[in-house]
Amino acid sequence: MDGATNRIGAVLRAIDDNLPQAQARLFDVLRIPSVSAQPAHAGDCLRAAAWFRDQLAGLGFAAEIVPTKGQPLVLARHPGPDGYAGPHVLFYGHYDVQPAEPLDLWTSPPFEPALAGGPRGERVVARGAVDDKGQVMMFVEALRAWHETGGGIPARVTVLMEGEEEVGSVNFEPWLAEAGGALNADVALVSDTGMWDIDTPAITTGLRGMIYVQMTVRGPARDLHSGIYGGAALNPINALTRALGDLHDETGRIRIPGFYDDVCELSADQAADWDRLSFDEGAFLGAVGLSSPAGERERPALQRLWSRPTADINGIWGGYTEAGAKTVIPSEASAKLSLRLVPDQNPDRIAAAARRFVEARLPPDARLSWEVFSATPAIAVRADSPYVAAARTALAEEYGRPALLMGSGGSIPVVSSFRRILDVDTVLMGFGLADDQMHGPNEKFELTCFRRGARSHARLLAKFAGLPRRPLQAAA
Amino acid sequence: MDGATNRIGAVLRAIDDNLPQAQARLFDVLRIPSVSAQPAHAGDCLRAAAWFRDQLAGLGFAAEIVPTKGQPLVLARHPGPDGYAGPHVLFYGHYDVQPAEPLDLWTSPPFEPALAGGPRGERVVARGAVDDKGQVMMFVEALRAWHETGGGIPARVTVLMEGEEEVGSVNFEPWLAEAGGALNADVALVSDTGMWDIDTPAITTGLRGMIYVQMTVRGPARDLHSGIYGGAALNPINALTRALGDLHDETGRIRIPGFYDDVCELSADQAADWDRLSFDEGAFLGAVGLSSPAGERERPALQRLWSRPTADINGIWGGYTEAGAKTVIPSEASAKLSLRLVPDQNPDRIAAAARRFVEARLPPDARLSWEVFSATPAIAVRADSPYVAAARTALAEEYGRPALLMGSGGSIPVVSSFRRILDVDTVLMGFGLADDQMHGPNEKFELTCFRRGARSHARLLAKFAGLPRRPLQAAA
Repeated sequence: MDGATNRIGAVLRAIDDNLPQAQARLFDVLRIPSVSAQPAHAGDCLRAAAWFRDQLAGLGFAAEIVPTKGQPLVLARHPGPDGYAGPHVLFYGHYDVQPAEPLDLWTSPPFEPALAGGPRGERVVARGAVDDKGQVMMFVEALRAWHETGGGIPARVTVLMEGEEEVGSVNFEPWLAEAGGALNADVALVSDTGMWDIDTPAITTGLRGMIYVQMTVRGPARDLHSGIYGGAALNPINALTRALGDLHDETGRIRIPGFYDDVCELSADQAADWDRLSFDEGAFLGAVGLSSPAGERERPALQRLWSRPTADINGIWGGYTEAGAKTVIPSEASAKLSLRLVPDQNPDRIAAAARRFVEARLPPDARLSWEVFSATPAIAVRADSPYVAAARTALAEEYGRPALLMGSGGSIPVVSSFRRILDVDTVLMGFGLADDQMHGPNEKFELTCFRRGARSHARLLAKFAGLPRRPLQAAA
Repeated sequence: MDGATNRIGAVLRAIDDNLPQAQARLFDVLRIPSVSAQPAHAGDCLRAAAWFRDQLAGLGFAAEIVPTKGQPLVLARHPGPDGYAGPHVLFYGHYDVQPAEPLDLWTSPPFEPALAGGPRGERVVARGAVDDKGQVMMFVEALRAWHETGGGIPARVTVLMEGEEEVGSVNFEPWLAEAGGALNADVALVSDTGMWDIDTPAITTGLRGMIYVQMTVRGPARDLHSGIYGGAALNPINALTRALGDLHDETGRIRIPGFYDDVCELSADQAADWDRLSFDEGAFLGAVGLSSPAGERERPALQRLWSRPTADINGIWGGYTEAGAKTVIPSEASAKLSLRLVPDQNPDRIAAAARRFVEARLPPDARLSWEVFSATPAIAVRADSPYVAAARTALAEEYGRPALLMGSGGSIPVVSSFRRILDVDTVLMGFGLADDQMHGPNEKFELTCFRRGARSHARLLAKFAGLPRRPLQAAA
């Protein structure tokens, strides 16, 4: 048993004893409306970055703000104990949050964090509570406990945070390509995923990729009276709904030509593993007021959620949207479309096919503008690495039961960048729950998840410290 | 030649001499933002009604404001000359206007009327310039010239204005059914239509009807993360676009079952008349930046515009519509849909069929709310009445060329109410032009149309006064 492992008892007690202060710190950063999608919040993004920089500097990190073309990065390095020879852990998180709209559906203001009671104790309600400020703060509090109580941070750790995860990480990958190699990391650790349920920890081994597109169909040079022009003039809303309404066939399959060409079938083993999870789709949907599954009719629920691609229109607008009637043929109509991708689908090729699909359905005179906000491939994490094994052990010790290996329907673009650019595996150890309302109104994070997540991170740091560097490949 | 006809020369001179004052009065009422669709403008609607009441009271009318459940009516009566035995003329207009949005496309503020230069002289730019305040004011100025110059208003005239024409006239018909018979009118006169072109006057003999519906598709109880739920949860935008995108087939025909069952083919005579108009659809569309006709592929342009039904989505909204990316499956999505109807289509039956059409295309769990704002049939005006003949003569005298009989794609719900409830014909004599941008930004009215329209109305009053009462039917 190495030194770090010996000290874990004191570290865990420190986390528990300091929970009120940890919660106050979390509230501080949740008050900063760092919405990366909205230009009006650029200053708030910088404030959030500076807040995290200061936190990490206070824990003995060499911490700095790194400008990009968009929102800045936070880069903080700690060498670990003197003479440390274990792996270099790169922790990635993001300080930006999703827009909070629609505001009227929040029970408390999204940037005034509140405590609310729940069936399993209190929870923090705020935009970013779980995604990702709360999850990052679990790791920061684990670092703090080691720093203040355990005799110092037990491993070499670099914390890298970006402010554009929610808008496609467009400036992160170029920075990583230029500067990431010098980091010389051995493993990446990300805490932005979920548990199986509140008592059952999980490591996520697959993430869907995503193409996010905004499109506008333009027709007449100005808004027209639908009585005078209806029957002769192109209506861009008619045209847009016609094209997008054709995205799925009767069975829920996506009609974009070639869309499924590279989609792999799940291995029999993996399919059997997922079957054994006995996922209750009725309960999953029932919790959000639904009773019938959408998506590909012939596929089991977990495949539809984790290993099959999707197409969702995330926003649409055009014409007159105020109260009452206005008989207008508008000059344009717009939509935002996301396509979730699975391993082996090529994002650029699928994005081009989607554009051709829409163009082919537009009438003459309709002009399409098409802006790809992001196009990132799906990723599959190797489940047999010693890092994943370390994380499973840390979780099993904390929760007293095995951690599951699960998929996730979400997308974290940087994970594929870490594989491709840094040649490192990522361990996805997250503590969100299905009902945390990520991206929705009343986003929340259970305090029990926060506490046990921080304790799990503290345990994992000790486990990582006990591994050799880069055992499975040549050192960089 | 009767007395009124003798005095017409002085009346026409008075109109010309007082044009600057008439324009100032028009500007006064255009400054009132009487947008009936927007509850915030209810007070402005009442102000506009009171303004017209005061104008008419100043011309010797017994003028009053008549409350309804919605915006009030203006009712103003003038008995005509002592011993008048001619027809009782019911002039109908509306003081409400369409919403002015999108405001950023206006070159001057919509409720600050401005004069702008054009190829045929100056024009008034403001919301309501032509629809319908400008057209009503032509009639008021004709009345004024008779009142102040011509020895008194030459006919028995009732002016009836409503404030809900732009939102379906929902409270007008009930009032008309209760109180309209007592008016004992012989003919209705409406100035809310257009000319063939700036030199060629026209009487409109057909108007399309309209169904205007707002629908909302509801799915999940709250907004969901499209990564976590995509592939399992109903997306209301996907569902709405799928249903509405199916409205038209490849040839532009509307797919609603039974939609065309009662649509009459144009008579050979009428079709030949319209062919002779040599309508230049290329120029009509070119003026608004389009080159290819939409609508039913096999139909001539004027049929598509005047005698064929249409379906236009006038507004659509749902999900995230701000800048950037948000990966949300929203809990609902909405649209506004208008169906233009032609004679013999039953609005209630078509509205029910449209609802069934949408419902049949929605997945399980999708809940549809469906609000019919208005449902009015198309109307066909008898072209052979002495009133239409009088209007054609008045126009021919003013313009020095014959007035055309034309159709119109627009809808004026009250015209069918006048026929059904009051059993009177309506003369549709209007002075708008195709490029007046009714319902759009930068709505305008040519001053030359305003002047000649006022002169035509002055002439028509004298012609009406010379006719016997109700020659074609029993007096009410």
